[in-house]
Amino acid sequence: MLSKSRLKYIQSLSHKKFREASPEFIIEGPKIVEEFLLNRPELINEIFTLDTWLQGAKILLSSLSPEKVISVSEIELEKLSGLSTPNQVLALVQKPDQPTVPDLRNRITLVLDNIQDPGNMGTIIRTADWFGISQVVCSKESAELYNPKVIQSTMGSILRVAVIYTDLDQWIEKVKDFPIYCTALNGKNLYEMGPVKEGLLIIGNESKGVRQSVMQAATKKITIPRFGGAESLNAAVAAGIVMAQLRKSC
Amino acid sequence: MLSKSRLKYIQSLSHKKFREASPEFIIEGPKIVEEFLLNRPELINEIFTLDTWLQGAKILLSSLSPEKVISVSEIELEKLSGLSTPNQVLALVQKPDQPTVPDLRNRITLVLDNIQDPGNMGTIIRTADWFGISQVVCSKESAELYNPKVIQSTMGSILRVAVIYTDLDQWIEKVKDFPIYCTALNGKNLYEMGPVKEGLLIIGNESKGVRQSVMQAATKKITIPRFGGAESLNAAVAAGIVMAQLRKSC
Repeated sequence: MLSKSRLKYIQSLSHKKFREASPEFIIEGPKIVEEFLLNRPELINEIFTLDTWLQGAKILLSSLSPEKVISVSEIELEKLSGLSTPNQVLALVQKPDQPTVPDLRNRITLVLDNIQDPGNMGTIIRTADWFGISQVVCSKESAELYNPKVIQSTMGSILRVAVIYTDLDQWIEKVKDFPIYCTALNGKNLYEMGPVKEGLLIIGNESKGVRQSVMQAATKKITIPRFGGAESLNAAVAAGIVMAQLRKSC
Repeated sequence: MLSKSRLKYIQSLSHKKFREASPEFIIEGPKIVEEFLLNRPELINEIFTLDTWLQGAKILLSSLSPEKVISVSEIELEKLSGLSTPNQVLALVQKPDQPTVPDLRNRITLVLDNIQDPGNMGTIIRTADWFGISQVVCSKESAELYNPKVIQSTMGSILRVAVIYTDLDQWIEKVKDFPIYCTALNGKNLYEMGPVKEGLLIIGNESKGVRQSVMQAATKKITIPRFGGAESLNAAVAAGIVMAQLRKSC
């Protein structure tokens, strides 16, 4: 049974202000809920589900105490959901602890300078996860991690990738001992890059690119060769292409 | 002066049914309108603009007859616009002629098997344009080219990339003489692929991948190595990674 106060609370999480003040966030749809159940069931505070999904998920749900699973009607799910087409199940999840200081040794760290579009942000986190990059440092002006569109676009990768927000201009000054890669107009040809074991890769804002104050720290500039007429690449696509190359022949 | 009938007509183009019946489509925002003005001004039937944009665009607009440029107020632009934040200018554009039969010789052709998300569709067209791939063949169930979200995500690449819709199952049977590349689970390692001068690259649906009926035609299966935990890549990101590799050392 869904109480009015629960409904009101969950609906409030569609607003950034309430989301930031809350220790919880929302995930929607069988795929991501199942990933949380499999990997971090302890983070799930409550599941609101149609009976259809509930029937098929009994084994997965056995790790959860029964009072955490609330059966709802389609009309109730519609009221709870932020999606235009609600997808069977929604869960209230505890925000996982994030490290406050990244460890940059022996790994690639992604750095996002003001990525604004939540879909791009989530897609970049998902792509980082694919390429085994488990740490992302973002400027404070980047899209908010718990925005539902970010969470949905990560497709569960939020479980494996640590995301740390920081004052990027100050932080980048302190990490200059590490190789810092960045896409730029007159950089080294992407295809000539070898595999990289340690370093930072900076991805810039969708329309403005990497800010000069951050770019000046980059010691390794890379250019993705252009063969046609497009003026630029989508930020998540460009990030994916460079990540793929950093992992080449690893 | 914006007439009521023009307003009604332009608003109707936000619905697929009316859009498909119309010889025109809508582009929004200075960037894409300027690209059309520079490259294909003859396609522009009408521009609706705030005076702010009009003032800065006088030289660009000189190729257009003055009656095609209609000054509107912010309130009028808001009514016309499909964007949540209208962006200064909007144009009604003639749909360009598209070839009905693709020419596959001496070039790479992208093949989209039921790409559903308009943002992915537009981003894939934009990425193809970056890599000099000027021809995309889509299944009829793929997102509609003139959906405003597709058009906006192409960022003007729609001007340089021909998009042809066809019955993919039938068509793929007829083009088997060409090398057909496709991402698959047990394919050749992406990094071992050489540059490709001629062939087809199939990109599959966001959640279902490439359908079996289309996949069976693929003679060159490619795997993007996975280093982390993500189950899959976003379709546009995967397409970008493979396109970059097909162009390697060209």
